[in-house]
Amino acid sequence: PVTPTEESSRLYPLPPTPKENKVLPEDLKTPDNHVERDPRLIRLTGVHPFNVEAPLSDLFDEGFITTKDLHYVRNHGAVPRVEDTEVLDWEFTVEGMVEHPIKMTLRDLIQDFEQVTYPITLVCAGNRRKEQNVVRKTKGFSWGAAGLSTALWTGVTLPDLLTRAVPKRGAKYVCFEGADKLPNGYYGTSVKLNWAMDPDRGMMVAHKMNGEPLPPDHGKPVRIVIPGQIGGRSVKWLKRIIVTSAPSDNWYHIYDNRVLPTMIDPEQSANLPDTWKDERYAIYDLNTNSAICYPAHDERVPLTGSAETYKLKGYAYAGGGKRVTRLEVTLDQGRTWMLAPISYPEDLYRQARDGETLFGGRLDVSWRETCFCWCFWELELPIAKLHEARDIMIRAMDDSMMVQPRDMYWSVLGMMNNPWYRVVIHKEGHSLRFEHPTQPALIPGGWMERVKKEGGNITNGFWGEKTAGEDATPVQEEPAK
Amino acid sequence: PVTPTEESSRLYPLPPTPKENKVLPEDLKTPDNHVERDPRLIRLTGVHPFNVEAPLSDLFDEGFITTKDLHYVRNHGAVPRVEDTEVLDWEFTVEGMVEHPIKMTLRDLIQDFEQVTYPITLVCAGNRRKEQNVVRKTKGFSWGAAGLSTALWTGVTLPDLLTRAVPKRGAKYVCFEGADKLPNGYYGTSVKLNWAMDPDRGMMVAHKMNGEPLPPDHGKPVRIVIPGQIGGRSVKWLKRIIVTSAPSDNWYHIYDNRVLPTMIDPEQSANLPDTWKDERYAIYDLNTNSAICYPAHDERVPLTGSAETYKLKGYAYAGGGKRVTRLEVTLDQGRTWMLAPISYPEDLYRQARDGETLFGGRLDVSWRETCFCWCFWELELPIAKLHEARDIMIRAMDDSMMVQPRDMYWSVLGMMNNPWYRVVIHKEGHSLRFEHPTQPALIPGGWMERVKKEGGNITNGFWGEKTAGEDATPVQEEPAK
Repeated sequence: PVTPTEESSRLYPLPPTPKENKVLPEDLKTPDNHVERDPRLIRLTGVHPFNVEAPLSDLFDEGFITTKDLHYVRNHGAVPRVEDTEVLDWEFTVEGMVEHPIKMTLRDLIQDFEQVTYPITLVCAGNRRKEQNVVRKTKGFSWGAAGLSTALWTGVTLPDLLTRAVPKRGAKYVCFEGADKLPNGYYGTSVKLNWAMDPDRGMMVAHKMNGEPLPPDHGKPVRIVIPGQIGGRSVKWLKRIIVTSAPSDNWYHIYDNRVLPTMIDPEQSANLPDTWKDERYAIYDLNTNSAICYPAHDERVPLTGSAETYKLKGYAYAGGGKRVTRLEVTLDQGRTWMLAPISYPEDLYRQARDGETLFGGRLDVSWRETCFCWCFWELELPIAKLHEARDIMIRAMDDSMMVQPRDMYWSVLGMMNNPWYRVVIHKEGHSLRFEHPTQPALIPGGWMERVKKEGGNITNGFWGEKTAGEDATPVQEEPAK
Repeated sequence: PVTPTEESSRLYPLPPTPKENKVLPEDLKTPDNHVERDPRLIRLTGVHPFNVEAPLSDLFDEGFITTKDLHYVRNHGAVPRVEDTEVLDWEFTVEGMVEHPIKMTLRDLIQDFEQVTYPITLVCAGNRRKEQNVVRKTKGFSWGAAGLSTALWTGVTLPDLLTRAVPKRGAKYVCFEGADKLPNGYYGTSVKLNWAMDPDRGMMVAHKMNGEPLPPDHGKPVRIVIPGQIGGRSVKWLKRIIVTSAPSDNWYHIYDNRVLPTMIDPEQSANLPDTWKDERYAIYDLNTNSAICYPAHDERVPLTGSAETYKLKGYAYAGGGKRVTRLEVTLDQGRTWMLAPISYPEDLYRQARDGETLFGGRLDVSWRETCFCWCFWELELPIAKLHEARDIMIRAMDDSMMVQPRDMYWSVLGMMNNPWYRVVIHKEGHSLRFEHPTQPALIPGGWMERVKKEGGNITNGFWGEKTAGEDATPVQEEPAK
């Protein structure tokens, strides 16, 4: 419980106040008819299963911490139903190649282990996939750029839990399995044991989100949360932790969350079991990515108003504990770049007092050199400069000096899409109108669909504009005079 | 000492036999007149100081392990002179924020600590800088693509050594200082203490290279070796290890080995002390990179010979323990890509028997999930396909799903250059001639200088070919008929 005295000394952000949600009418006829949800969330796979992202502006406006209301959700099937009265008796195991197998309840997890709290940004591997789907249909549904969210998670670190179980010699992986029964079995995946045992990586068994018991869509009553890796590894509704000598053989571990080589098309992929099983193509750490949130899609900025400047804003993130070290903006398609100041609200938690607790967990951040959360950038520019430009593009660089590429890496599942984020500027009468690359789900709009319809090649590294390499395409000529 | 029985069971590569070198005539008039060197090495900064890389083909032909003869060298000044008889008495310290400061000799390091051996690829932050210098002169000299080498290093791990000294509360960095006195003081730099204490990162105090005492150019008698980070952090001729609460304030730590934002030009950079001191721009982990070694520059392949195929070959690497998970080749400027098989000779060391030793050190590789070395790729193609193509380009992707970019990131010091490596194909009579981007040092040749001289814009993402964004440049027209 946060006392007023404690609160006044906190420099770091606390979660915004969540809403009271209800079961929505559209969920009444589905197995999720017990789950309360926020109607603002955009459904990406029809009514059911529930896969959603918030409108990008709403997500951004909530700030560093996202409420449960707007936190993205990736469900493969029905949400397991757990009554509040059953929560503390929920059982899960630590088994497999361990000296001391554990069968425990959530009550045991809370009573017998040190509790920690820290902020973690979860990102779906499919964030920005709609852009890939416009280039060429992938096997995945169409995430916009809001497939990420940040919450304060409370629970027990995996190193703590696994140390109690004592992994055996030869153990190399840790598998996680949830209670969500799906056409191909329970959802499950694995990570390397070496990572799971590394306190720097901060993997956690969590039972609170923003200080409240987990909502059903986020794993009620207990889940894995893995900072810096794609959301698909953070198994919800946790039932089993299995220490093994080989990666998970769960169907979802093998046939989801992979970036197959770009030349493999959907037809070929059906006949390449060895390629699917090649762990080199499995995604763990997030790649470096960024998006423009303001100007929003279809936002209009008057040229004749009193404001002479406009403040561009957005987010960026890196994976595997890495940090975004610079965010650059171009108004001339990459010829020149401007540096945008970055803020890392996560750093405010590093200044917490020694042993300080939040939501019943020690705020386990101050000693970390690693980075688990998104950051924000902004850049104030004269509107006259935006008026002169055709588009705004951004790219982030991380502390391993890898920079987001100009070119999209298309792959059959459509994942980890991270080319320069481009917003087109239209001059319309006395205002500027801004156009994002896409809109999520089946929502029409965005320059990618438009340019493609106009016959432009959106894979050419020039966003559909003509290049010398495309001489074969007839160039429109001015009629001779 | 390697006994025949041991040798026969080894699956992993041992170093090629080194040559007996002599002091070269050009070194006689320099302070390095005591240092024996291989005349094949290409001098990048005149005669002195000694900064060299091997001819790319020679480096590649040596295989996974590079001999001392061809290992690249980056010296800032004169090589400290240490007689063989003085080696074991060489003193160095572990000092600063530690409970138990240590002053020790190399003899102590060998006698009092466990010795380990493993292969490490060192890479200069300036590898491939010549390409950047052609675009726009940086403050650095012109490395080609052979600014990297791999050796088996033997010594004591930093976690071992630092644990003995016991870092104090509040300590966050480890500084290293060498015996090479330079215009701005002794060479020195720092890394994070958290990394230095992490066995996965494998930082080491080394006294043997490929089973022999360190050669003078490589730090005789003792040096730091840091896997996965730029060579500039691996301080040679080690005198001091200093645990601190802040990064090194050594001149070379601040004004070298940084990637400043791209918009900062050499003139501006002289007046930006805070930008130089911003640790976000300091380079630690290597970024992901690759090069084509065969076909070599100016190699000719007959179209009329008996061979119907040609095998492309090269290297790739990633930093920070990451692994290259795919290498792709394009013959149509990125429209389509082919997958090239990769081999990781480093993995052979992982299969060593438990406790196996090499060169007096335990082969400390089998348990590691991290990757410390370069890998090799090759792709056999019909010569007819090469005949049809204008160029060959490659890109590597690492296990964080970051891919080498099409575009160069130019910065004032010219470092971490890693765009797609491009070899141009010229059709000359009955053969193909291949042209690399550049040649190291002041050696002329390469398509970048040629295209630039012809007036092409080599920064446009199309290697100097005309793009739609360059309408201002008059396009050559067919004369009207």
